[in-house]
Amino acid sequence: MMTNKKLTILTCMDSRLDPINIFGIAQGEAHIIRNAGGRATDDALNSMIVSQKILGTKEFWVVHHTQCLMGNLTDDLMSELPDSLRKSAFLDLEQSVIDDIKLIKSHELLPDDIQVRGFVYDLEQNELKPII
Amino acid sequence: MMTNKKLTILTCMDSRLDPINIFGIAQGEAHIIRNAGGRATDDALNSMIVSQKILGTKEFWVVHHTQCLMGNLTDDLMSELPDSLRKSAFLDLEQSVIDDIKLIKSHELLPDDIQVRGFVYDLEQNELKPII
Repeated sequence: MMTNKKLTILTCMDSRLDPINIFGIAQGEAHIIRNAGGRATDDALNSMIVSQKILGTKEFWVVHHTQCLMGNLTDDLMSELPDSLRKSAFLDLEQSVIDDIKLIKSHELLPDDIQVRGFVYDLEQNELKPII
Repeated sequence: MMTNKKLTILTCMDSRLDPINIFGIAQGEAHIIRNAGGRATDDALNSMIVSQKILGTKEFWVVHHTQCLMGNLTDDLMSELPDSLRKSAFLDLEQSVIDDIKLIKSHELLPDDIQVRGFVYDLEQNELKPII
């Protein structure tokens, strides 16, 4: 997949994901932010601000994936996690991508015309599905 | 480098770092958390809690690197960043690793006996230096 080389990818920490291979990008082409779920948390947004303001990022990609733990938290598991983590959980995978795109696009410290694309990565099929 | 396969690595989002290659680990062997600087922010600690409590992580590695933007922020650059980001900046690279190890080891939601190792990755030499 072609990139403009001013790209930052937000994705999940899951060991089964290797963003450099999934996207066929070369080392050095994209900054990569990862956390539980690949969610646009305050900290992820902070890293995006650094990448945009200082490293010149022109485009963000949000990549969530099938079989993600944060989309499959039972009440029992949820009760073990701090409150601040619970909002990273999600029920609908595509919606979680859409929600995070909105957070990035509406952030007051990121430019209004920043490009943001969303994807769901299907681990079983090894396939990237763009989210409109 | 051998891993126990219950490993989570915290490192920087910088495009020049490819943690899977740096550590010679196979895909699937380590969860990888990345943000600006590879710092143990609240969000990174939250992801670590998920990885420990739910995914069974037994060991954390903190990897900061030479030429890191967060270690080279001028006052001008700093003034463009939100307050919550400024604490991710650092003056001393090794000390930043030591500080983050302490935050992980002392976190009330992570077990006291969790293994935490620290490294500085030298980008010019392509070399990993353990921090004691």
